[in-house]
Amino acid sequence: MSMNKITSITHNTPDMGFSALRVAYQTGNATPAGVMADIRERAKSYGDYNIWIHLLTEEEQAVWLEALKGKDIDSHPLWGIPFAIKDNIDLAGIPTTAGCEAFAYTPEVSSQVVQQLIDAGAVPVGKTNLDQFATGLNGTRSPIGACHNAFNYDYISGGSSSGSAVAVALGLASFSLGTDTAGSGRIPACFNNLVGVKPSIGLLSATGLVPACRSLDCMTIFAYNTDDANVALAAAEGFDQRDGYSRRNPFANQARHYGLRKGPLTVGVIPAHQLKFFGDEGYQKAYWHTLELLKEQGFVFQEIDYAPFDEIAQLLYEGPWVSERYVATQPLIDEHPEAIFPVVREIIAPGGKPPATALFKAQYRIQDLKQICLAQMTQLDCLLTPTAGRHFTIAEMLAEPIKRNSELGYYTNFMNLIDLAAIAVPTVMTEHNMPFGVTLVGPTFSDRMLMSIANRIQQALPLPKGKLETMAAPANVTPVGNLNTIDVMVCG
Amino acid sequence: MSMNKITSITHNTPDMGFSALRVAYQTGNATPAGVMADIRERAKSYGDYNIWIHLLTEEEQAVWLEALKGKDIDSHPLWGIPFAIKDNIDLAGIPTTAGCEAFAYTPEVSSQVVQQLIDAGAVPVGKTNLDQFATGLNGTRSPIGACHNAFNYDYISGGSSSGSAVAVALGLASFSLGTDTAGSGRIPACFNNLVGVKPSIGLLSATGLVPACRSLDCMTIFAYNTDDANVALAAAEGFDQRDGYSRRNPFANQARHYGLRKGPLTVGVIPAHQLKFFGDEGYQKAYWHTLELLKEQGFVFQEIDYAPFDEIAQLLYEGPWVSERYVATQPLIDEHPEAIFPVVREIIAPGGKPPATALFKAQYRIQDLKQICLAQMTQLDCLLTPTAGRHFTIAEMLAEPIKRNSELGYYTNFMNLIDLAAIAVPTVMTEHNMPFGVTLVGPTFSDRMLMSIANRIQQALPLPKGKLETMAAPANVTPVGNLNTIDVMVCG
Repeated sequence: MSMNKITSITHNTPDMGFSALRVAYQTGNATPAGVMADIRERAKSYGDYNIWIHLLTEEEQAVWLEALKGKDIDSHPLWGIPFAIKDNIDLAGIPTTAGCEAFAYTPEVSSQVVQQLIDAGAVPVGKTNLDQFATGLNGTRSPIGACHNAFNYDYISGGSSSGSAVAVALGLASFSLGTDTAGSGRIPACFNNLVGVKPSIGLLSATGLVPACRSLDCMTIFAYNTDDANVALAAAEGFDQRDGYSRRNPFANQARHYGLRKGPLTVGVIPAHQLKFFGDEGYQKAYWHTLELLKEQGFVFQEIDYAPFDEIAQLLYEGPWVSERYVATQPLIDEHPEAIFPVVREIIAPGGKPPATALFKAQYRIQDLKQICLAQMTQLDCLLTPTAGRHFTIAEMLAEPIKRNSELGYYTNFMNLIDLAAIAVPTVMTEHNMPFGVTLVGPTFSDRMLMSIANRIQQALPLPKGKLETMAAPANVTPVGNLNTIDVMVCG
Repeated sequence: MSMNKITSITHNTPDMGFSALRVAYQTGNATPAGVMADIRERAKSYGDYNIWIHLLTEEEQAVWLEALKGKDIDSHPLWGIPFAIKDNIDLAGIPTTAGCEAFAYTPEVSSQVVQQLIDAGAVPVGKTNLDQFATGLNGTRSPIGACHNAFNYDYISGGSSSGSAVAVALGLASFSLGTDTAGSGRIPACFNNLVGVKPSIGLLSATGLVPACRSLDCMTIFAYNTDDANVALAAAEGFDQRDGYSRRNPFANQARHYGLRKGPLTVGVIPAHQLKFFGDEGYQKAYWHTLELLKEQGFVFQEIDYAPFDEIAQLLYEGPWVSERYVATQPLIDEHPEAIFPVVREIIAPGGKPPATALFKAQYRIQDLKQICLAQMTQLDCLLTPTAGRHFTIAEMLAEPIKRNSELGYYTNFMNLIDLAAIAVPTVMTEHNMPFGVTLVGPTFSDRMLMSIANRIQQALPLPKGKLETMAAPANVTPVGNLNTIDVMVCG
């Protein structure tokens, strides 16, 4: 399906989509080692984007390339596909920092999901920057510096999975792993023109993941399109008894049920008076433009009441769930609080105080609100919301870090508290040529249904892959290998 | 199915099973008003058993009998069937006390489950005694006095659903509603020779139920046998959006799937070194005797490791879940702690202290242990445990109220924390002619499967209905109506 979307790419920014790479490998026009060397070369141009906490050296990567030799490309759907790993997810032998040196450790084994991806042939490129301890939706909360947006250096990347999104958008990986507790796998997808899959809780194992809120955390996937995301998700998912929150995927949600969702669709939307764009006219216009375009494609929109969703969203940061973040950073926060990034410490530190009684009361309220929310969704194929209401500049973000972050979460924070699945999908570029996208929302284990609707949106509203097809060649990069022939070969 | 089990009952203690009553009504040999008057008469003999907190007067009951007049017996499966209601469940117009006068209120509407039972034709008899705020497994923790066992006045009834079990065992109701957080719907079933259905969380609505631990509470059903229990359960169950913990029953667990479970059965049992009978040789013998009898019936037993179940069980009373009980008794426990029964107050009062961090840590541990427990159950039809390890006298219980209660929960406390379904079923009488039974345990929404296995056990090991068929006529009771002809009519 993505084959016919390959368009002309400058000779220094190859098409990093799965199909193009596989064809290049199968025809001998590229080798994984060549692709990886090219990525390292191109990454040099983006040093000031603060994408990586640890970009693998040729030597560190050698073991994973070596492992490919015993594997057949036809039976390994991710053979030679480069992927980036958010630095709160373990890769064997490389430090996991969660964005905090004082917290870092070097795991002996990879996280379950990383191992499954490697088993399917994928090759790790490096560990990416993040809002420290995955606490944030903006990408500025890192001791190594704010991660910059792929489309405009002055804008936030989104977070907390900042580097993972920007790496894919700039073609430094074909897909990446993020995590999502409050929206960390969706906001950066929106701001960098990517698909962001926030799977149902427990679909991807959390073994080898540094928790943020362990009861809510999901590993996520950034990719150029839903086709690629589905291949990566299929390799990544699976029940893991070692993870207390892992669940078995029901038959109706298995990879084979991904496709192109045709036919009539009734989609819930937020009434105008409950929408918030926080002064971003570009995003506001882009949202209404998206709805118009989708109406032309046969989408029927039906208004829901967003109030219960919003009440849930507010409970996430203002309620006792911050105690989970506190637990996740113990004993560091008890013994060396000064080692934690200031704004992150400011958010997490109060988490030691709430009593269990407050948590039970909040959990009861969430259960009650969940019933109200689900009742609204029963007659709908899915909900559709803006993924974010406003895209801030880094300067705007740093000026009011707590308030702006809260605004970023207006459409995302409720999701995991009521156990929903979601996918962020790009829809249009704003008048200032910045990415905008929407999020599709469905019940637990509706992942493939949502991805199939997202696929329809991507087919209807074609966009570049990340920033790839819009990029000029980085000035100081010497081409490595012969990837410059890929587009001709595939489309010619 | 229960027809052929009706045996001779003395003329003052009629067969109160559903089939016998329905036949009596259909043939004109009894009327609901007559049955209810007879119950009130017979109840007088048991005044010192402390069964009732509020036995309905003829006047109070009139409205429910009146409601029957518009209903057809054939389409109302519980037409004229008397049932008792634990006094933490609302019945319109009658005070709900939860065993605490200072807490009492008079609801204007019945709880959802009570209303559904009434809609199906059932007639409320009264509100039953309980361990205050459903905090206990023994039946002694009530300001109106300890509830006494139906089989031996010196022994505990079990609790917290004490009166509901004893009422049915003595024929003062045909079935009853209890609740079960830690075992309150199973322990009293075991001690009074009844079936105790502890449904999956959320199968029965909790709207109109005074919470104990709201995230764990289940309404339960006491009945003479699984046939009756299934009819009552079918009328009682159903999704209720107002209850945050309510869930939709999947097709495979609907009432139609109840039956007689035939064929080979592989059942998990606790290895001898992990069994605890706390010095009760009668129960110990009864348990091994039960296993022998079931082996003869084709049950194949396979040992599991009970350690993870036991660790969960201990977390319920020793961990932060006591904070739920605290929340449930607020504001009373904050403002008038002296109004709470001393041993209950002693248990609940510390519940204000644990931090949310402790609760999250405990919830993580539960999730991890749940995976281990469920993994052990995947190849089994169900687990089978003693329902209780020891049957205490009231004097023994009062001598060490906390320790004894903890011992009573050894086989029951884990159940709701890991979202399992259970049914307590009588199997044999001890050498001292006291009831003993086992509990069948299965995953969420295995209720009908468990009931179908329990049915097979009841068919294989026939016992009296509660205490009915073993009772001499109460000395001071004048027969009311002509129910004395039922057994002749049905079996003759």
